[in-house]
Amino acid sequence: MPAELINGTAIARQVREDVARGVAELVATGGAAPGLATVLIGDDPASEVYVRNKRRACTAAGMIDQHRHLPGDVDQATAAALIDQLAADPAVSGILLQLPTPAHLDVEVLLARIPADKDVDGLTVANAGLLAQGRPGLRPCTPSGVMALLDQHDVPLQGAEAVVVGRSVLVGKPMAHLLLERHATVTTCHSRTRDLAEVCRRADVLVVAAGIPGLIGPEAVKPAATVIDVGIHRSGNGLRGDVDTAAVAEVASRITPVPGGVGPMTIALLLANTLTAARRQQGRADGPINGTTAS
Amino acid sequence: MPAELINGTAIARQVREDVARGVAELVATGGAAPGLATVLIGDDPASEVYVRNKRRACTAAGMIDQHRHLPGDVDQATAAALIDQLAADPAVSGILLQLPTPAHLDVEVLLARIPADKDVDGLTVANAGLLAQGRPGLRPCTPSGVMALLDQHDVPLQGAEAVVVGRSVLVGKPMAHLLLERHATVTTCHSRTRDLAEVCRRADVLVVAAGIPGLIGPEAVKPAATVIDVGIHRSGNGLRGDVDTAAVAEVASRITPVPGGVGPMTIALLLANTLTAARRQQGRADGPINGTTAS
Repeated sequence: MPAELINGTAIARQVREDVARGVAELVATGGAAPGLATVLIGDDPASEVYVRNKRRACTAAGMIDQHRHLPGDVDQATAAALIDQLAADPAVSGILLQLPTPAHLDVEVLLARIPADKDVDGLTVANAGLLAQGRPGLRPCTPSGVMALLDQHDVPLQGAEAVVVGRSVLVGKPMAHLLLERHATVTTCHSRTRDLAEVCRRADVLVVAAGIPGLIGPEAVKPAATVIDVGIHRSGNGLRGDVDTAAVAEVASRITPVPGGVGPMTIALLLANTLTAARRQQGRADGPINGTTAS
Repeated sequence: MPAELINGTAIARQVREDVARGVAELVATGGAAPGLATVLIGDDPASEVYVRNKRRACTAAGMIDQHRHLPGDVDQATAAALIDQLAADPAVSGILLQLPTPAHLDVEVLLARIPADKDVDGLTVANAGLLAQGRPGLRPCTPSGVMALLDQHDVPLQGAEAVVVGRSVLVGKPMAHLLLERHATVTTCHSRTRDLAEVCRRADVLVVAAGIPGLIGPEAVKPAATVIDVGIHRSGNGLRGDVDTAAVAEVASRITPVPGGVGPMTIALLLANTLTAARRQQGRADGPINGTTAS
């Protein structure tokens, strides 16, 4: 029997509606609408599309679009000054520096100027440390989105064997921490893992974020496992992921399609993080968003 | 054939000698001797012993003992002011706040005032984030000590299956990161892990930091595995660890005894971190210490 498809598009829509409700409630109780500052440096067409989508989602949820655009030849000091200004601005709840930035800029230094409580992408060293130590902070959007998908499908995590393929700072490493926080037994695999299929076959929950099209086939999947595919690659036949979806769906019990699986969750969780940041900055309690408790 | 014993006492001595040589070289080339500020609050007898041992090791390595002692009823502001003063003092290379502190103090707030580059215990959120993101920082002493033991015995890590039992902020979590940095396939187990023995039996390298005396017996050990026991417990027959050493030694190829395994490494790596901190503060390059490169 083929696996149930995890409908990321529908779940992301729910998260965005929950965020919109949370924003409305914040405003109705005398708070300020959250403001999201997307910072775009230069004119990379793909980055422009990503930023436009984030800005649209932001205003659709009732938040204030605080977009800033700098020319591609801006110097480091000017870019840093903009981040500092946004950091100090109480109308800005969250700051998102769109990556990649032009090569002449030191992106690490720019990211480090984003205060942890406005780092809605969850990418700063400070938020990575808070996650590693299990303290409240803002979590990276894509792995948080995966957790929301698992929770929406009531996938049991406590005591489950979870395997994460990939160890990137953006996805793999924070993903492992989030699964560990929920009491899974977590294994991280990567390019040097000796027998990848054997290790993956142990997984009740398999999260693949390797960046290699079709890396995971049915021989690497335990019967009835839940398989989450974070990869997204352009191919001759449209988009595909790191998982051979059709073949793996014959083995797994649940699987995310590509597109329409993890992809839509990233922006949804960016909005959720921006609401969480605004609530905290305004001294409000965290609210649950679509079943996932902010942490 | 019983396993080879990993002699932590001897390896710790080597590390301390290497640090002493590094200190002498720093001073001989016009640098300042590293200063270690151990901060003890109150009169807990066990803490006094620990601090005394650290101070002795520090002076034996040619470093300057910058010990500070505050009364147990000190208020938060006074304790914080002392940390700030040490943070600003160029003669202080490293600050170690001895834990536990008296219950009326907010220890997290005190720890957060230690600058990342003087956090020789490697326990601050900032250093946890640097480790999680694979950037240079100061690493926690006990897991770094385990890495030094593995390196001294040339234990292969790349592609090896490593299992860490325990997920504490002090040991388990940073241990998993350090093993992952060295390209092991890393699994973290804990109290909710379903079949602990089965998971541990996959390990080429098994690091046990669970805090439960005798938790790991021979049924949980793969033949010829390397077993590192971080536990230390007082019992009727002296000290014992988390591993049933005698029985496991019949299965493993290498094992750390308790005492004399991991224990002596913690102070040795504290000294190594203090030297690393001093070198960086004085604009010097990192030096290798006993085969392990500072990171």
